[in-house]
Amino acid sequence: MTSFLPEIPSLYDSAHSARVQTLIDQKTKPVGALGTLERLAHRLACILGSDAPQLVQPQMVVFAADHGLAAARGVSAFPVDVTWQMVENFLAGGAAVSVLSRQNGLDLHVVDCGVARDIPERAEAPGQPRLWHRKVAYGTQDCSRAPAMSAAQCDAAMRHGAALVQALPGNALLLGEMGIGNTSCASLLLARLCAVDVAQVTGVGTGLNAAGLARKVAVLREVLAFHSQVREPLEVLAAMGGLEIAAMVGAVLQAAQERRVIVVDGFITTAAVLVASRLCPAVLERCVFAHRSGEPGHTIVLQALGAEPLLDWGLRLGEGSGAALAWPLLVSACAMLRDMASFASAGVAGQEAESVSA
Amino acid sequence: MTSFLPEIPSLYDSAHSARVQTLIDQKTKPVGALGTLERLAHRLACILGSDAPQLVQPQMVVFAADHGLAAARGVSAFPVDVTWQMVENFLAGGAAVSVLSRQNGLDLHVVDCGVARDIPERAEAPGQPRLWHRKVAYGTQDCSRAPAMSAAQCDAAMRHGAALVQALPGNALLLGEMGIGNTSCASLLLARLCAVDVAQVTGVGTGLNAAGLARKVAVLREVLAFHSQVREPLEVLAAMGGLEIAAMVGAVLQAAQERRVIVVDGFITTAAVLVASRLCPAVLERCVFAHRSGEPGHTIVLQALGAEPLLDWGLRLGEGSGAALAWPLLVSACAMLRDMASFASAGVAGQEAESVSA
Repeated sequence: MTSFLPEIPSLYDSAHSARVQTLIDQKTKPVGALGTLERLAHRLACILGSDAPQLVQPQMVVFAADHGLAAARGVSAFPVDVTWQMVENFLAGGAAVSVLSRQNGLDLHVVDCGVARDIPERAEAPGQPRLWHRKVAYGTQDCSRAPAMSAAQCDAAMRHGAALVQALPGNALLLGEMGIGNTSCASLLLARLCAVDVAQVTGVGTGLNAAGLARKVAVLREVLAFHSQVREPLEVLAAMGGLEIAAMVGAVLQAAQERRVIVVDGFITTAAVLVASRLCPAVLERCVFAHRSGEPGHTIVLQALGAEPLLDWGLRLGEGSGAALAWPLLVSACAMLRDMASFASAGVAGQEAESVSA
Repeated sequence: MTSFLPEIPSLYDSAHSARVQTLIDQKTKPVGALGTLERLAHRLACILGSDAPQLVQPQMVVFAADHGLAAARGVSAFPVDVTWQMVENFLAGGAAVSVLSRQNGLDLHVVDCGVARDIPERAEAPGQPRLWHRKVAYGTQDCSRAPAMSAAQCDAAMRHGAALVQALPGNALLLGEMGIGNTSCASLLLARLCAVDVAQVTGVGTGLNAAGLARKVAVLREVLAFHSQVREPLEVLAAMGGLEIAAMVGAVLQAAQERRVIVVDGFITTAAVLVASRLCPAVLERCVFAHRSGEPGHTIVLQALGAEPLLDWGLRLGEGSGAALAWPLLVSACAMLRDMASFASAGVAGQEAESVSA
């Protein structure tokens, strides 16, 4: 599997990075007055290697799979059939990510990485969501009794994710996912890879009550104990992850290697980025974190990754809905850098030297 | 002046409000899983009186004026000429609000409410920013020595703001402003109307250093002492406000009466909403607060108004830049409510009763 891992160098060319910062500072506004928008513009310019970055043909890819743990142990507020039902809803255009992708001009792809039921083929139409059959298995194994995936399955899912990104146009990848039970995977990956107590990083997911949450934490402790010897990122991923998460790890590595902008959605996609960053730390430079979700583990993993999320809206839907929602903010950051006048070009006076902040 | 004040009833029809909430709860997502987006959608539906709200022809209006206090006492990091220079920049398309309005399909208007220099007329062109001459005076008086405006001037500026809104199409008003020195006005209005210490609500504005900030606070204390007897909202506005702020108060009252969505930008526009809300509290129901800025007073006034800002990006530019930036998020909220499928329509199973949160 390690043969798959691409070489991803740091993209921060200090001369280019400094030049972009100077361009931002010369725009007709006090230095720093556009706050997060300035940092976002700087990041996008560095990822795309341009002084005038332009986002082209953004691709929203929703990776879907089922989880043996959810089927066997009931860690979710929703029945497992909701995974395939929501895949149908994404494709029919009625889900949040469908609506927000349409609004914001994102091409929507749905990948069956391991849904427990076969998703029927459908006629393709331009402008409609596209279904990709990349099923590795009909869901993972119950990871409280066995590894969720074999190493070969995990590798296959990663390669599917990478190959899919390679086939897509544009310079930006937005990550989404669907899989009843996959907040459990995210909590498990985070607990093991960041060595935190699983109770601290486990939340209500789609809406457990207090008793349901307590049951979920107990099951996750059992899983961690069963896999107590597993420590390496890819082994942790295979043991306690999911097929959609493995596919996202592959997609993130591929997108980072191609210097695409990677827009990360919520808790589960961030967990995939965590795994990818343990394999190649420089992937983080290519990521924009769309939001901080209501899941307590998300705050902890964002901190661990040094991320500055754009929205703090208490979202806890997944699907890529937060990434789709935040997309126009990235477009704004590029527009600011490309199109705003400088003090010199606009003939506007600068700050008076004696009163300027140091 | 009180004859101007419109009747603005509360718009919360409890039957409609409850129906909209039910529609949101039936969408294919766990109840509450879209967090702030759900509350935003609910508010927009209530303002527009619709179960399927649609934002139409949004109008960004930037109100500009100069301030005698800035000219006389140097409370800003920038020279007062920057007001007219930035008005030219707005109209030429190079300012942040110009760029972001173009990106997001906002019609841009710039209103000379009281700039210290005459802004030359220019040929109008479709799709270009439009200049409105509504100058009441060549800036306000130095309010450390006299009322900033006479009651008649304040009234005239308010009426201009209201008449302008009345003349504009669409169902949404985005508020912007430009006026070197106007964070001082916002601090003064807030300190007096909310009875807080002015030092707590005074910030660096466009970028004062520590000595400049201390000087600004000392000047503002002097102003408050000079007008120590002034307590009524409109008298406070005339004594220590600005012509652009008075125009915004009129615009907010008019927009609220017409049930337009009012998108509030930063510290200065929020101060205008504060004054308007003291005259007609129901205006607040029509407002969406785009962001929480880096000015310390902004956090305090947002709390006083019970506002939930959409972005927390440390913006401190004004112009309406934060409102323009946040606009697509409002469009998303309406799209979610209009276009998302319900569990019933999409054939998706609901939450399992035994594990659902109470």
